[in-house]
Amino acid sequence: MYSPLIQKLIDLFSKFPTVGPRTAARFVFYLINLSEKDTKELLESISKLKEKVKTCPFCFNKFEPKTQEEKMCDICSDPNRDKKILCIVEKETDLSAIEKTKKYNGLYFVLGGRLSSLKKENIEKIRIKELEERINNPSDFGIQTDNFQEIILALNPTPEGETTTLFLERRLKPLGIKITRLGRGLPVGGELEYADEETLKSAFEGRK
Amino acid sequence: MYSPLIQKLIDLFSKFPTVGPRTAARFVFYLINLSEKDTKELLESISKLKEKVKTCPFCFNKFEPKTQEEKMCDICSDPNRDKKILCIVEKETDLSAIEKTKKYNGLYFVLGGRLSSLKKENIEKIRIKELEERINNPSDFGIQTDNFQEIILALNPTPEGETTTLFLERRLKPLGIKITRLGRGLPVGGELEYADEETLKSAFEGRK
Amino acid sequence: MYSPLIQKLIDLFSKFPTVGPRTAARFVFYLINLSEKDTKELLESISKLKEKVKTCPFCFNKFEPKTQEEKMCDICSDPNRDKKILCIVEKETDLSAIEKTKKYNGLYFVLGGRLSSLKKENIEKIRIKELEERINNPSDFGIQTDNFQEIILALNPTPEGETTTLFLERRLKPLGIKITRLGRGLPVGGELEYADEETLKSAFEGRK
Amino acid sequence: MYSPLIQKLIDLFSKFPTVGPRTAARFVFYLINLSEKDTKELLESISKLKEKVKTCPFCFNKFEPKTQEEKMCDICSDPNRDKKILCIVEKETDLSAIEKTKKYNGLYFVLGGRLSSLKKENIEKIRIKELEERINNPSDFGIQTDNFQEIILALNPTPEGETTTLFLERRLKPLGIKITRLGRGLPVGGELEYADEETLKSAFEGRK
Repeated sequence: MYSPLIQKLIDLFSKFPTVGPRTAARFVFYLINLSEKDTKELLESISKLKEKVKTCPFCFNKFEPKTQEEKMCDICSDPNRDKKILCIVEKETDLSAIEKTKKYNGLYFVLGGRLSSLKKENIEKIRIKELEERINNPSDFGIQTDNFQEIILALNPTPEGETTTLFLERRLKPLGIKITRLGRGLPVGGELEYADEETLKSAFEGRK
Repeated sequence: MYSPLIQKLIDLFSKFPTVGPRTAARFVFYLINLSEKDTKELLESISKLKEKVKTCPFCFNKFEPKTQEEKMCDICSDPNRDKKILCIVEKETDLSAIEKTKKYNGLYFVLGGRLSSLKKENIEKIRIKELEERINNPSDFGIQTDNFQEIILALNPTPEGETTTLFLERRLKPLGIKITRLGRGLPVGGELEYADEETLKSAFEGRK
Repeated sequence: MYSPLIQKLIDLFSKFPTVGPRTAARFVFYLINLSEKDTKELLESISKLKEKVKTCPFCFNKFEPKTQEEKMCDICSDPNRDKKILCIVEKETDLSAIEKTKKYNGLYFVLGGRLSSLKKENIEKIRIKELEERINNPSDFGIQTDNFQEIILALNPTPEGETTTLFLERRLKPLGIKITRLGRGLPVGGELEYADEETLKSAFEGRK
Repeated sequence: MYSPLIQKLIDLFSKFPTVGPRTAARFVFYLINLSEKDTKELLESISKLKEKVKTCPFCFNKFEPKTQEEKMCDICSDPNRDKKILCIVEKETDLSAIEKTKKYNGLYFVLGGRLSSLKKENIEKIRIKELEERINNPSDFGIQTDNFQEIILALNPTPEGETTTLFLERRLKPLGIKITRLGRGLPVGGELEYADEETLKSAFEGRK
């Protein structure tokens, strides 16, 4: 129905997260009607992004070095961050969500995925080897610390997140470092009556 | 459009919680098509409910005395419940939700509502006077205890629940009893990325 | 968790259409807290409903006779209704929805269900035999007419409604009466972009 | 929280239809993790789109000329399309939705918007002058026809679409051409009981 170029771009946008073919079509017509100037800005921003944004060698978060000398992200290179505590997250946007709370001042590690099962091919897709290397020898990756004293498993409390958490607990236990999980409980706006038992149990245990 | 009797019953069912006129109409036709026997069972159950179900003089929960001598609900009269801890809930179904978790073994108090504002006429609608009497003189209301050592404010983390919690904290503070709230955090199935900052903060503070 | 009487009534309300156990529990506590007077009104309304509401011998709609002599519903006994046209609906609330539009002035027949498949046991659950008898000999059931000139199949455009419509079309075709279906098209508030092809096709064919 | 380049691209994606800042952030990290090759393909597709896709001088639909000589879109230049009937749509994706049904073989006109009110500044934003010119002198814009015999107003049955339809009806009436609207009715999957009166009325009137 659509011309080849339009259809091709619909297909490319359909691969974006949360985007289906109808939304992709709306994106394409949005672009067609975009001014020359705005289109150029978008294309250049994407090109620059790919060119300038680097991956931090310690935490795997994405960052934009301000000088050629900058090798690590703002968080890993910040002398005021607590280098004895490491928070493991699934993806970059989870790290940003935590930073927004301003309640955490330690380091991060972006796992790059979660486990839907404990099959070998799944485990190989996340950065488990990289994580172990960084916990064991942080200074090899640019972090000066006397070893971590707490590892926070900040995975989502979804089934896949739970599987990943259980896997990491078992895997990291031999290191003898304190391992914690985020607190469960009633979220803002939640209702006791509609909470699942597990959440309500945690809310009772975590009262203060 | 409907005959007077049908319309009247639609109006009565429309007053039930969560029921609008379309659902009420479906209820009425459900009843019309119900067998003689099932209708009788429903009507008798409602009559018996109103006749047999009593309000516990201490906690205001509803209960069904098994003998004429039974004056208090199963929880208040259970010798194994911890009588040093009192959990304040908005309504009976919240109490049931907590009981299902089997994580709480103290007493309850059903407040009978929540505050949308601190206006006098709102405050008079909930059982605040009754609550204070029971905390100050539990034995006057059938509970033998040396005074409470913890009061849990188990209101919903909604704006109205928060207003009620703040009001109760201020009101009960002079009694010198430890006052706690349910823990906040990520609910089962939640996602960090979509959690509000407040919930995520609590999840970090409550990690373990 | 709930006392036997409360639990029993929760179970009974859970059988009402669209009601689950949590909503049923809210209904029960609503009833417990209902005044004596309002409870009596509800119980009497239900009793009277079962006693006074009759089934019309022609259309199977429910009605409330105003005198003992009234044998048929308001619609079937109305001399101004067009007795040459019959509209077949699944249930009483569909009939009411159509009456509210004031666009239809013929008679109705309430089928009492819809077909999820063409299995014999499904077909026996709806009033197909009764329908054929009334179409063939309306005067036997209190309707004076020279035979119907149009039968409207006003089933829902859902898969089950479609199955029922197809079944009725095949079954009623030999009678030689004009059979129609409700028009398909875009509903108020709908959008072309999100309409399925079938709906959009009908909207084009039905333009005017 | 995000680095300047990431934040800038989040802002640009947030202007895309249906996209909020959270989804925009996910898009950016999707792009960061996209391979060199796939990124290049996306950027080139967008550039080519802007370069190759043209606006048809008659209908204002977007098309991709296969040769330099091609001046009009596939539909307008198709000798088999019925040039006596013109369908007015709000936007390009509505045109595609209609084409998919294969039920319409006339010409189109893309209005480029809809009216939320009849204010002058709103009316000036849609292609009403262009529409009148094309209806009055189709051959000036590349369409050889003896004048249109039907104009279909295929706007959405939303409040804004209705306002636009009423405006166009009044404006085009003096031309003396038959003006039609898409048929209203129950959509596939809809239910009589939950349909609004207007939709149900149309379904009855449009029965067949």
